Amino acid sequence: MVVVMEERASEEQVQHVIAQLVEKGFDVHRSTGQLRSVLGAVGGNRSFDTRLIEVMDGVHEVLRITEPYKLASRTFKPERSTISFDEFRVGGDEVIVMAGPCSVETEEQIAASAATVKKAGAKILRGGAFKPRSSPYSFQGLGEEGLRMMRTAADAEGLKVVSEVMDVSQIELVARYADILQVGARNMQNYTLLRELGKSHTPVLLKRGIAATIEEWLLSAEYVLSGGNSDVILCERGIRTFESYTRNTLDISAIPVIHKLSHLPIIADPSHGTGLRDKVTPMARAAIAAGADGLIIEVHPDPDNALSDGAQSIFPPQFDRLMAELRIIAPAIGRSICLEPVARRGWGA
Amino acid sequence: MVVVMEERASEEQVQHVIAQLVEKGFDVHRSTGQLRSVLGAVGGNRSFDTRLIEVMDGVHEVLRITEPYKLASRTFKPERSTISFDEFRVGGDEVIVMAGPCSVETEEQIAASAATVKKAGAKILRGGAFKPRSSPYSFQGLGEEGLRMMRTAADAEGLKVVSEVMDVSQIELVARYADILQVGARNMQNYTLLRELGKSHTPVLLKRGIAATIEEWLLSAEYVLSGGNSDVILCERGIRTFESYTRNTLDISAIPVIHKLSHLPIIADPSHGTGLRDKVTPMARAAIAAGADGLIIEVHPDPDNALSDGAQSIFPPQFDRLMAELRIIAPAIGRSICLEPVARRGWGA
Amino acid sequence: MVVVMEERASEEQVQHVIAQLVEKGFDVHRSTGQLRSVLGAVGGNRSFDTRLIEVMDGVHEVLRITEPYKLASRTFKPERSTISFDEFRVGGDEVIVMAGPCSVETEEQIAASAATVKKAGAKILRGGAFKPRSSPYSFQGLGEEGLRMMRTAADAEGLKVVSEVMDVSQIELVARYADILQVGARNMQNYTLLRELGKSHTPVLLKRGIAATIEEWLLSAEYVLSGGNSDVILCERGIRTFESYTRNTLDISAIPVIHKLSHLPIIADPSHGTGLRDKVTPMARAAIAAGADGLIIEVHPDPDNALSDGAQSIFPPQFDRLMAELRIIAPAIGRSICLEPVARRGWGA
Amino acid sequence: MVVVMEERASEEQVQHVIAQLVEKGFDVHRSTGQLRSVLGAVGGNRSFDTRLIEVMDGVHEVLRITEPYKLASRTFKPERSTISFDEFRVGGDEVIVMAGPCSVETEEQIAASAATVKKAGAKILRGGAFKPRSSPYSFQGLGEEGLRMMRTAADAEGLKVVSEVMDVSQIELVARYADILQVGARNMQNYTLLRELGKSHTPVLLKRGIAATIEEWLLSAEYVLSGGNSDVILCERGIRTFESYTRNTLDISAIPVIHKLSHLPIIADPSHGTGLRDKVTPMARAAIAAGADGLIIEVHPDPDNALSDGAQSIFPPQFDRLMAELRIIAPAIGRSICLEPVARRGWGA
Repeated sequence: MVVVMEERASEEQVQHVIAQLVEKGFDVHRSTGQLRSVLGAVGGNRSFDTRLIEVMDGVHEVLRITEPYKLASRTFKPERSTISFDEFRVGGDEVIVMAGPCSVETEEQIAASAATVKKAGAKILRGGAFKPRSSPYSFQGLGEEGLRMMRTAADAEGLKVVSEVMDVSQIELVARYADILQVGARNMQNYTLLRELGKSHTPVLLKRGIAATIEEWLLSAEYVLSGGNSDVILCERGIRTFESYTRNTLDISAIPVIHKLSHLPIIADPSHGTGLRDKVTPMARAAIAAGADGLIIEVHPDPDNALSDGAQSIFPPQFDRLMAELRIIAPAIGRSICLEPVARRGWGA
Repeated sequence: MVVVMEERASEEQVQHVIAQLVEKGFDVHRSTGQLRSVLGAVGGNRSFDTRLIEVMDGVHEVLRITEPYKLASRTFKPERSTISFDEFRVGGDEVIVMAGPCSVETEEQIAASAATVKKAGAKILRGGAFKPRSSPYSFQGLGEEGLRMMRTAADAEGLKVVSEVMDVSQIELVARYADILQVGARNMQNYTLLRELGKSHTPVLLKRGIAATIEEWLLSAEYVLSGGNSDVILCERGIRTFESYTRNTLDISAIPVIHKLSHLPIIADPSHGTGLRDKVTPMARAAIAAGADGLIIEVHPDPDNALSDGAQSIFPPQFDRLMAELRIIAPAIGRSICLEPVARRGWGA
Repeated sequence: MVVVMEERASEEQVQHVIAQLVEKGFDVHRSTGQLRSVLGAVGGNRSFDTRLIEVMDGVHEVLRITEPYKLASRTFKPERSTISFDEFRVGGDEVIVMAGPCSVETEEQIAASAATVKKAGAKILRGGAFKPRSSPYSFQGLGEEGLRMMRTAADAEGLKVVSEVMDVSQIELVARYADILQVGARNMQNYTLLRELGKSHTPVLLKRGIAATIEEWLLSAEYVLSGGNSDVILCERGIRTFESYTRNTLDISAIPVIHKLSHLPIIADPSHGTGLRDKVTPMARAAIAAGADGLIIEVHPDPDNALSDGAQSIFPPQFDRLMAELRIIAPAIGRSICLEPVARRGWGA
Repeated sequence: MVVVMEERASEEQVQHVIAQLVEKGFDVHRSTGQLRSVLGAVGGNRSFDTRLIEVMDGVHEVLRITEPYKLASRTFKPERSTISFDEFRVGGDEVIVMAGPCSVETEEQIAASAATVKKAGAKILRGGAFKPRSSPYSFQGLGEEGLRMMRTAADAEGLKVVSEVMDVSQIELVARYADILQVGARNMQNYTLLRELGKSHTPVLLKRGIAATIEEWLLSAEYVLSGGNSDVILCERGIRTFESYTRNTLDISAIPVIHKLSHLPIIADPSHGTGLRDKVTPMARAAIAAGADGLIIEVHPDPDNALSDGAQSIFPPQFDRLMAELRIIAPAIGRSICLEPVARRGWGA
């Protein structure tokens, strides 16, 4: 921490600040300039609230030097992390696509979804069984029955499963059926949930809150990592801005920023990031071009009759076409994307 | 819902939209203008996702007419709600102040806080036992022990107690000690928690999420109300904007907006809303001048050594002075504020 | 400037940064810690772009110490500035209210407006002759004819005049009729205009841009001050946030922030800050309670037929009532507000 | 416009609203539902301020149906516009790149820049002669001398020129040297300037303001178009959000949104959009992948010693590499990008 004193700060005020820093466990190095004193403080607690010094008399500004997160930082672990599943890795050279409906609705719907996404080259089936809905009057998901249907559908196609967990009480249940536990944007700072997921052995997909800074997002990842679970995948899904034409503003620049600050893999969610079906494809392409390690996309066999988020779900042929476009783009940045035998025939038809 | 078709929409497209609306349970009224058709749709589900129509071919725009919340709206209940405690009401003519430290730390600290806030005229003691901290390395609260200390301190002074509940598993415990259960900004859309609080008989203080629109906030209140708990107090505590000088931007205008849209009482939290001690007093005055039904303020007997949020906690004499200023301001808008016998002597000294 | 090197920065990288700083005219002080080096750099150019250092190899972060503005800062001039007119001062103990219609429309309209605002106790008549309208198809103002009408109306009531200047070419003209030249929010960073106003001898009312940080706002003031015109009044008029219920979010907290950072007076504009008539009064009260030095308010004798901004203009009786409320609130923070003989009789009737 | 009355609105209130609409020149169609009346109003002025109705008693909400812009809309002109230069078009199948330094500094610097950008395949040389700087103490540009240097350098390489015009008084001068007149983000709502550019015959590059909605941006384009100048190129350059890691948040989703709403071409500026050199390349790729018609990029032969924006200027080899990557990406969305003979040899070396 660097404490910049005001130009008119008295010697007594400087001494008071030094004493306070020492009491809080910092080593202090004072540098007295012509205009003002600057104090460098090292040691102390990583989570020390610097505002405590900021409000002291004679203090002009306090500048934190160390990031408040550690395990999530690239300083701590310079090489990128990958998360391995049977035959593929998230965070490696291959771009991994997760796709499926917003909610699991019926056996037929999830089976058709699984077949669609498999054929086009996705590796992981997405689908919600517990849905966080802003209105209490909306469809809230099928619960365990939905999880069971999704597992069956995924197994039939050789896919992995990602599904959301909304509460501590659901962790064990969802982990029985899913390979990745998703934490939704609204729960990004549900610390009770994050702490519990830190004890789990199942990988976690941590969505960015719509008003979360990149630093806060990495701090939430830190909750999971510090609990002992090192398999965290970050997911950019749009931030809230003044622009209301799109539901959110997908912050594509967060992708290269995360890659600089952290070793964790990052994927993008253009479905929630835009909220509009016809914007999903261009933004999916943009995310991969910017270097994302993967995508999570809402695809539905019949979006017009989806029980949730139909408006942002794309049709299966749109998904096929998107995957074909990504196969051209990925090599531009030295990456590959799965080219399934079936898919090869499929999307070319 | 009003569906505005594009100028070039074909008759077939119009018919397709009408059919879809009818299928979803709406009665449709078509008005064919010179330039375009406009469809009025009534009935249907209050939580219908209008984007489903928005993405249809030929549709220019879809405009929702009905608010998605019902029980929280002033249309449903025109007269303002009040929440009664033994000797006072929140939402009535009297401005109610809740004050105390960010976290309960020791018996001495909470007892001193209770005495301070009582003397100055506050009616409710605030203090956290379970703390949602953005860093896993920060102080996380004393838990039940803290609740017990706070109850004892409050009872000694004849104060009510408000404390935060972070998770479903804590509801019963916190409700044993507190008179009001606080839902923090980060949990405003923790629907599992809200639903459970709807079954409780304890009043709920619902803080606005830092990126929540007023509509989303009222929808979260709707979760509690629709569960059967009608005692919800809203709390504006600052939204996230581009301005970073203050920690958040306290949206004072939300106060008159809520009073127009909803019958629920609304208070303001200038401590979290600014994050800086010297901004708490002016913003507290502003909130009352704008019509807030109360305040929640962090006061600490020794802010420099507070275990959390010391930088935004005010000193007891600052609190005394603020309460004195509020006693001048409140009558300007036809409200009163408690003038305790002790306080009368206290702050004038 | 403080340059924090990365933990793994090589000695060569540190030397490269030092060399670059020295070349740019800085004196460098190096402090080598256990984990990393920190460089303090003083001297150099106040407007040096610190990002130049930020992108160098081995640099973790660059922290600017000095505010980029000087003449506008309280460090430069600790006592508050006031701007004197014949019988009153802006920035002193008295709260000064500027009021009138959005646009000057007719002689009758502006005369009626002047009488209304005078009667209620305002000191300055506002009104636009050149209007910045987001649509090219909207009413654009009466130009010089409007200025002449407004001057006549103001003189008849003994009021001062504030009016907007949109372009360098209008400065001389508007200054012939007005006592204060207003720079609108959209022009806050029109540097050609600001520079020219710096050469003027007429006071400037500088509105905050809807996306301007407080620092950028003070930098814009610096443009005027550095040109030699020291009479700048700042005006908070709402910032753009995600909340769309109100047109903008009036950042009341900017008032105490400006008072801490700068010696310049600051007023608030609750009309543009909210965009809705029924929110003007509560926000005007809030601004004064937070310490604003004044207000600028749209009042119109017949808002329903105003040529611009009728929806946010209040009716004369609403203005009377607001002024009465402010007379109660102002003393709470040690300020007065004009109590004209006529007004005393007027608003009580 | 659709006016939704409140459920409790009296018949008198409905009649009052109808009368007001008729007086303002609208034809009104009333639809009386079980719960409330809805009024459809057509005709009237495109720029009518709907808030005038919104504040009337008994009105619940007013919904505007028509976009406030006309000439810029795709409803008005369904096929995409292109802007032709001697040998290429902006807005056609070919992706057009504009590149060069932030400011013109010396003859050598601009000549080296022109050679670099030409070699890599760019078609247009960018460079500022008049610089809008937030600080009055920063380098403000070389003025006409800079324009002359840039024209000479561009002609030597067969490039077109784009340069910023900050004020009405500069239009004629800049148009003598440049092929495209750039309007900076801070001037997006400088209506005096826009109106004057509408009379010019030189194409205009209109940057989006950092807080401008897409609708406001198109309204600013409308100012130019309605003056008679139909050659407007839009440029997304980042919006201001709460995230401060990047200087702005480049709103990539604005690209497909503009393509849906308007026929005008749109390019992206990843240099200002991120403000950080190492983020320029990924965001440039993302913009093209999302469908942008081109890019404008800051390239400098010696960024470390640039007089402005060096930190966001890329080095010539980085630019070569980016162009090579774009040549892979562009075909994925059916577009080409110039492959100069020299460039072919250049970037492969």
